[in-house]
Amino acid sequence: MKTVIAVDAMGGDHGPSVTVPASLDFLASHGEARLLLVGLAGPLAAELAGNGAAGHPRIEVVPATEVVGMDEDIRTAIRTKRHSSMRVAINLVKEGRAQACVSAGNTGALMGTAKFVLKTLPGIDRPAICGVLPTRKGVVYALDLGANADCTPDHLLQFAVMGATLVEAVEERSRPTVGLLNIGSEEIKGNEVVKKAGELLKASTLNFHGNVEGNDIYNGTTDVVVCDGFVGNVALKTSEGLAKMMGDFLKEEYTRSPFTRLAALVSLPVIKAFRRRLDHRRYNGATLLGLRGIVVKSHGSADRLAFATALERADSEVRHGLNERIAAEIGRLHGLGVLAGSGRAAVVEAAA
Amino acid sequence: MKTVIAVDAMGGDHGPSVTVPASLDFLASHGEARLLLVGLAGPLAAELAGNGAAGHPRIEVVPATEVVGMDEDIRTAIRTKRHSSMRVAINLVKEGRAQACVSAGNTGALMGTAKFVLKTLPGIDRPAICGVLPTRKGVVYALDLGANADCTPDHLLQFAVMGATLVEAVEERSRPTVGLLNIGSEEIKGNEVVKKAGELLKASTLNFHGNVEGNDIYNGTTDVVVCDGFVGNVALKTSEGLAKMMGDFLKEEYTRSPFTRLAALVSLPVIKAFRRRLDHRRYNGATLLGLRGIVVKSHGSADRLAFATALERADSEVRHGLNERIAAEIGRLHGLGVLAGSGRAAVVEAAA
Repeated sequence: MKTVIAVDAMGGDHGPSVTVPASLDFLASHGEARLLLVGLAGPLAAELAGNGAAGHPRIEVVPATEVVGMDEDIRTAIRTKRHSSMRVAINLVKEGRAQACVSAGNTGALMGTAKFVLKTLPGIDRPAICGVLPTRKGVVYALDLGANADCTPDHLLQFAVMGATLVEAVEERSRPTVGLLNIGSEEIKGNEVVKKAGELLKASTLNFHGNVEGNDIYNGTTDVVVCDGFVGNVALKTSEGLAKMMGDFLKEEYTRSPFTRLAALVSLPVIKAFRRRLDHRRYNGATLLGLRGIVVKSHGSADRLAFATALERADSEVRHGLNERIAAEIGRLHGLGVLAGSGRAAVVEAAA
Repeated sequence: MKTVIAVDAMGGDHGPSVTVPASLDFLASHGEARLLLVGLAGPLAAELAGNGAAGHPRIEVVPATEVVGMDEDIRTAIRTKRHSSMRVAINLVKEGRAQACVSAGNTGALMGTAKFVLKTLPGIDRPAICGVLPTRKGVVYALDLGANADCTPDHLLQFAVMGATLVEAVEERSRPTVGLLNIGSEEIKGNEVVKKAGELLKASTLNFHGNVEGNDIYNGTTDVVVCDGFVGNVALKTSEGLAKMMGDFLKEEYTRSPFTRLAALVSLPVIKAFRRRLDHRRYNGATLLGLRGIVVKSHGSADRLAFATALERADSEVRHGLNERIAAEIGRLHGLGVLAGSGRAAVVEAAA
């Protein structure tokens, strides 16, 4: 299958200077794929020419006249920036010209615009942001990482279904385990929403492991970790802050004196191997799950390698038929009566 | 002032084999302090004799006939273990024989028993667990780390007052900054409870910095970070899991081959300095704030150095008159009408 991905080439802290070279890297290793680069025509043409890729046979430049700022609020982005690169890229998915869209633009605007343009899948009340994190055993898929600060137990159940389907599809792992992020492994612990979500998950057809705690994320206890967007966002950003501090402390200690600099030189292969195992660029690209179209959010500060990783994620999700699988699974679970809430009506309606 | 601290000598994963040597270390560096070691008489006497400290002039052994298990639930601990080392140690604070109590026993049982025996300070609805974490700039005090999974905005405000007072007292820092843990720095973000708490904090007399995000914890953006116990516990345990994974990855890379082992040898001073900066043992001891008595919870897995740190924390809080300061501050704020909620009635009652 030939994947076509719409790239918001203006998004992120670096815009085309990162998105264009990353797109070329991606195309070089994905011979079948095509990209629609969306953005201001001038800068895009210059960047393509600068990389010797003017007239690349698998790149089409789709012009957009505006750019959504990294601090722009959701409403402004949706109402006043109808010709933004982000909006146009999402429109391309809506129109069926692209099967997925990747943007390093601001998360709130991207989620808001994607919801507004694409709408949610039948049976899904709220889309969620699903990220990939390195663990002792491989990777863990965690959601929601910030789209929904207040969640109901039904929302958490839907997140679990979407996360598990994502792992089944992309990692090709059957019946992935799902953990519910909580503050104790005993069932009585946790807040009211999480307690009720635990009951729903236990009654579901998912491979529910039970409660997991914060340390289980990096222990790789389960394939999927489910939580509300407030908790998930705090856990993610706390992790980013700690990892960066530890990395900087290590660097400080290694550059303290001529002797420690020598030790650093001798340790270079070790430090490189260590860095590689935790390199966030290799895990870049969070999926906005639950929309009628695949949308992948790259970190705003992504560099060339990181942005190419986000493109690969979108490509993989398209090739594995992610959204068809989620829609089928949600429909199946509604049929079984496992899912309830407002989503049920939508499924029934869509099926009618 | 001569500090007297009651030590639950049986608590934690290691019991007297850690608590007794740690107590002796603490006494050696705190010439004025006295300790009441609470626990099973036989094991305590043996451990003291084994350390050449039988008949230590500043140690009194207070016998207790039971031990609260690390997995014991709160109700069982309170109802059926009236003669546990944990309960007796807290009773000593209640009776005024000790000014503080330190335990490495299970958190739920410790908080439950302390609340039951000591009661909360006037004007405080819920005690909270306040921990100390290393940052780029020094340390941050974070609360609640797990006592209250569901919080109201008033609870968060009370936590903020207690945390700020703790920093003022122990760190001797005037008007410490307080951050509200949220998922975005804009005021519109966050869940409903946090939004309302932000308004209360802004209207308070505290030095409120505004919203902070997960990465701000380790950036040391504020002196105090306030959140509900669910979010705080997840952030803490996620951090523990990540730090441990990173440490283990570094170790794995350094022990991979004869060459990397040599690099490790050359890097030993660097690795030691790095480890020391993040050594959780140096930050051990979380304070249960808001009780009519000082109670410090040590990590269950604490070793000799870590447990001695928890004893030092309790000693410092006693010497700085922590609880008198919190009571005075809460009373003052109620007088100013800054605090509301059920606490107000208690203050009025206590003052009558």
